[in-house]
Amino acid sequence: MPLLVVGSVAIDNVETPQARRDGLLGGSATHFSYAASFFTEVRLVGVVGQDWPAEHTALLNGRGIDTSGLQVADGKTFRWTGRYEPNMNDRETLDLELNVFGQFNPVLSEDYRRTEYVFLANGVPALQLKVLDQVPGCRLVVADTMELWIQTTHADLMKLFRRIDGLVINDSEAKLLADTENLVLAGHRVRAMGPRFVVIKKGEHGAMFFSEHETYVMPAFPTEKVIDPTGAGDSFAGGMMGYLSQHANFEPHTLKTAMAYGILVASFNVEGFGLERMQQITRDDIEERMKAYKKMLSF
Amino acid sequence: MPLLVVGSVAIDNVETPQARRDGLLGGSATHFSYAASFFTEVRLVGVVGQDWPAEHTALLNGRGIDTSGLQVADGKTFRWTGRYEPNMNDRETLDLELNVFGQFNPVLSEDYRRTEYVFLANGVPALQLKVLDQVPGCRLVVADTMELWIQTTHADLMKLFRRIDGLVINDSEAKLLADTENLVLAGHRVRAMGPRFVVIKKGEHGAMFFSEHETYVMPAFPTEKVIDPTGAGDSFAGGMMGYLSQHANFEPHTLKTAMAYGILVASFNVEGFGLERMQQITRDDIEERMKAYKKMLSF
Repeated sequence: MPLLVVGSVAIDNVETPQARRDGLLGGSATHFSYAASFFTEVRLVGVVGQDWPAEHTALLNGRGIDTSGLQVADGKTFRWTGRYEPNMNDRETLDLELNVFGQFNPVLSEDYRRTEYVFLANGVPALQLKVLDQVPGCRLVVADTMELWIQTTHADLMKLFRRIDGLVINDSEAKLLADTENLVLAGHRVRAMGPRFVVIKKGEHGAMFFSEHETYVMPAFPTEKVIDPTGAGDSFAGGMMGYLSQHANFEPHTLKTAMAYGILVASFNVEGFGLERMQQITRDDIEERMKAYKKMLSF
Repeated sequence: MPLLVVGSVAIDNVETPQARRDGLLGGSATHFSYAASFFTEVRLVGVVGQDWPAEHTALLNGRGIDTSGLQVADGKTFRWTGRYEPNMNDRETLDLELNVFGQFNPVLSEDYRRTEYVFLANGVPALQLKVLDQVPGCRLVVADTMELWIQTTHADLMKLFRRIDGLVINDSEAKLLADTENLVLAGHRVRAMGPRFVVIKKGEHGAMFFSEHETYVMPAFPTEKVIDPTGAGDSFAGGMMGYLSQHANFEPHTLKTAMAYGILVASFNVEGFGLERMQQITRDDIEERMKAYKKMLSF
């Protein structure tokens, strides 16, 4: 089944203790799309400016991603510049220019409105709700959010939570939302706010899943090659939802396998700047890593 | 096979954001012994003072732990007072009185010297080496250490590393030893310093294993009831070595199962102050949790 994602498309400059790279293809919807494209047909909805390099679109199309929903607006593309701490987890935003993304107003085509699998990447909750209104028949809608919206638009966020099937957030967001340092408790509390299931991403420590009947943790795939963590969370969500939309059921086994694919795709994403490592891999590489991951977890 | 542990036996005062408890039975060798006693015959070597309550010894004996190696010296027992941060991971030592533990000089009995499974709990490396000299025929010796010894007695520690089979340390110690923030890299580097295998404990995030041919991560058992994390690392090591000494082989499968038991025993340990929760459980409770853990990791 096709999978629709609505979110940011950006040009990133990333600095790590080892290196700095400018002009990377970035943004949450981009990382999500690329990761999901290994599993299913992806429809990307976003906005870029006049400065958008045509080769970036070509790169996405090369993986079969439908970019007909990628608007080109007057102005410049969203730009983010960040620097990672030596732990490669904490990061500082050095510069942020919303540019055309500040006026982003996604209007879906008739065809896109019939998409049954939808991911609302991080964005203003009011906008996420507006997208949701346009896909009344969708079977699965999953959203992401960030600390800014938890703190500044809490009521809208709660409205959103009551309408989505799944929420994918990171550990610090979960703690903030649930007002507890215990992630297990946080997961249950956030689920009680509305979503049928909640996934808490823990970066190098993996991810946790919470539904009515299930609570589990899956570790990250151990890699010593962490080059650039940017987009890891979005590629996790892309791998997970890509697999889910391909399998079209929400059985516990399917959800857990989807989580595992999300973890593995994210483990490739961090092994290069931007999408560089992702461009080198095939579905076979993911399957190879899945074999190792399953072996690692069995005893 | 019997399992020998040499380390601290203490009286702890523990403060958490929720409560404070004084006079708890604590110490690394104590938590280790109690955890291991669910799997095998344990021999505890340590020292206490004149103030040592007889009921503490009775509690250990009640689990079949051999305390004939627990010396009673003139003076007071080692006392530790600590306070946990709201994250229940970071802690501050409020007071530390080494007392009789400061002059601890373990001399093993003839019988104890023939023990084939030995755990050197955290202590001065020179002392750990002295114990090692007394068990020339042991089949498996595993050690723990701490930041203080990494920083102040590095040469002795390196001597120890070249003589032990396994090292069990926590994440911050591994990063310090290996001079890297990447735990996978840290594990490989520390193993290259001598031990045949290295286990890195990550607290609520589980543990990682490194040997020549294997690298893996196992998540912690998710619990929302974290009452007191004191001794979690030692009960992990106790569960792990208890299982290993019971099975007397070092096949990859045995080592991984041992890691899992360590993780599960530690998950009970944190559910109460000191050894309170551990006193409520039986081997059956551990097996029950093992079933849930295996289910959690299979998909």
